[in-house]
Amino acid sequence: MLRVPYADLDHALHRAMLHLGLDGDRAALCARLFAETTRDGVYTHGLNRFPRFAGMVANGCIDLAAEPTRVAGAAAIERWDGHLGPGNLNAYAAMQRAIELARLHGLGCVALSNTNHWMRGGSYGWLAAETGLFAICWTNTLANLPAWGAISPTLGNNPLVVAIPRPDGAHVVLDMAVSQFSYGTISAYTARGEQLPVAGGYDAAGELTTNPAAIEASQRALPIGYWKGSGLSLVLDMLAAMLSGGLATHQLPRDSARESGLSQIFLAIDPSSFVARPELDRIANGILDSLHAAVAIDPAHPVRTPGQQTLRLREENLRLGVPVDPVLWERLLLLSF
Amino acid sequence: MLRVPYADLDHALHRAMLHLGLDGDRAALCARLFAETTRDGVYTHGLNRFPRFAGMVANGCIDLAAEPTRVAGAAAIERWDGHLGPGNLNAYAAMQRAIELARLHGLGCVALSNTNHWMRGGSYGWLAAETGLFAICWTNTLANLPAWGAISPTLGNNPLVVAIPRPDGAHVVLDMAVSQFSYGTISAYTARGEQLPVAGGYDAAGELTTNPAAIEASQRALPIGYWKGSGLSLVLDMLAAMLSGGLATHQLPRDSARESGLSQIFLAIDPSSFVARPELDRIANGILDSLHAAVAIDPAHPVRTPGQQTLRLREENLRLGVPVDPVLWERLLLLSF
Repeated sequence: MLRVPYADLDHALHRAMLHLGLDGDRAALCARLFAETTRDGVYTHGLNRFPRFAGMVANGCIDLAAEPTRVAGAAAIERWDGHLGPGNLNAYAAMQRAIELARLHGLGCVALSNTNHWMRGGSYGWLAAETGLFAICWTNTLANLPAWGAISPTLGNNPLVVAIPRPDGAHVVLDMAVSQFSYGTISAYTARGEQLPVAGGYDAAGELTTNPAAIEASQRALPIGYWKGSGLSLVLDMLAAMLSGGLATHQLPRDSARESGLSQIFLAIDPSSFVARPELDRIANGILDSLHAAVAIDPAHPVRTPGQQTLRLREENLRLGVPVDPVLWERLLLLSF
Repeated sequence: MLRVPYADLDHALHRAMLHLGLDGDRAALCARLFAETTRDGVYTHGLNRFPRFAGMVANGCIDLAAEPTRVAGAAAIERWDGHLGPGNLNAYAAMQRAIELARLHGLGCVALSNTNHWMRGGSYGWLAAETGLFAICWTNTLANLPAWGAISPTLGNNPLVVAIPRPDGAHVVLDMAVSQFSYGTISAYTARGEQLPVAGGYDAAGELTTNPAAIEASQRALPIGYWKGSGLSLVLDMLAAMLSGGLATHQLPRDSARESGLSQIFLAIDPSSFVARPELDRIANGILDSLHAAVAIDPAHPVRTPGQQTLRLREENLRLGVPVDPVLWERLLLLSF
């Protein structure tokens, strides 16, 4: 593993975005969102995802020139069309607009259609929390999970993000797909020859298994909580497609290289006109103190809050350099995508 | 099991509410919410819960005379104080107010503090869906789940409801706690001498188990999706307590007979000013058709949607009579609580 200074990673990605054909400011923002994701330790959705992003520009799924536009709305809720522009730029713009609406109305919601993969969903939660707002957002995805009681996959793993602003940037940001494990994680376990820590799907005989290769073969991954995550995935897809007027999971190409036309929801909450920051912080401190006082299974591993690992890795990677795949880094410097 | 006509159940509950000391219209609504819950097949949270409700009136946790009041707000979001009134009446009023706010602003949110158990959370989802609106609501609860990595319970199972309006009352309503099984369900398996269908918690040795008695002994039930449900429970509690200004899970009495002072969130969404009903129905029909077309594990058990079982049991119970516990029914008729 190679570590490179964060500024170098951001700069190289910026050059690469310009090389792909993105305009100035948009290239800088798109690069920053990729670089921050790797900096924060979400390696699957940062630099490592750039080749697929470049591939989707090449195959026409991503239109670099497209910018989202408002197509309808009423006071605190609006529909936007992403016109198949870069998914992270569309999502960033949508959350920014939800924040503006929340500042006006206390609550704001943008339902975004015709967009592309938002990369790290947590980015838009951190964005809202940095402005002092609460946020809830989610995306639909291609079908990769069987519904409870089904063999064939008709549900997406529909990542869900919930962000809670905290002092000094130590926000609580939950960023979770509704599958127990992503296929990326399952493949990584197979490659390492390891079993999953808990059952992640069914084998060919229809038994729950921790064997990652068996799940890759059956394509029957588990939703979180079995029937519960199955229901949650369904309603997230319904809300996203119905409110945005966009495509639902069953209409998306079943090919990750062509997974385009997603629907997403961005909800921001601004209680600042009726509650002072110290009251919010006092309530949150009590909750987090109680959590951290819980008796740990292993005293060497105290209970963590969502976002805590992100902050730790961010600090470490800014100090030591951001870990990058050496081959990918070389390709990025040569702009050979 | 005894079956009684729905009208008789509703009437007997209404008499019982008046006997407890609730005023006229409020007694009728409170009784109806209990009766509808049993009618819809959610037996744990309807009539069967009435003795505990009466007990909490007797022990002073529920103030029958208290009505919720607005304490603060800004446009689409408001804080209400439930003054420890009956939980189902407070929740009904809060969702009604969220619906009013959504009709004005497209979105509406009520954050409710100092309330009591809302009984069936789904009731407030059905209420919004009946008016053609989307809804998301949740409540915190007493601590009954260890956080991921902890032995001692510091999280609630915080039920979450998502409602999607559909034609002819066939709404999609997800109503799920973030624990894999409630302790009520776990006890019922113990009583029947059955194993849980999937692991529901840890035994005394710290191993995942399907043995319900072992989980009752360890008090280490599982959140859905292990670490994921743990994070979800935490952020739902933070949002509810911070936005309402009320109590968080760690502050609630660890005694279900005195579980009072809850915090809840009611969010309603009204897109009717910019999208016509037929477009919403067309999108939802596509999603549900795709789900029902999934290859079932057992062809005799096609995939179900959240709310479908409710509609089936509602129809059956209205036709055949609502199943009630004979002893409880006798006590209700004698008003002997």
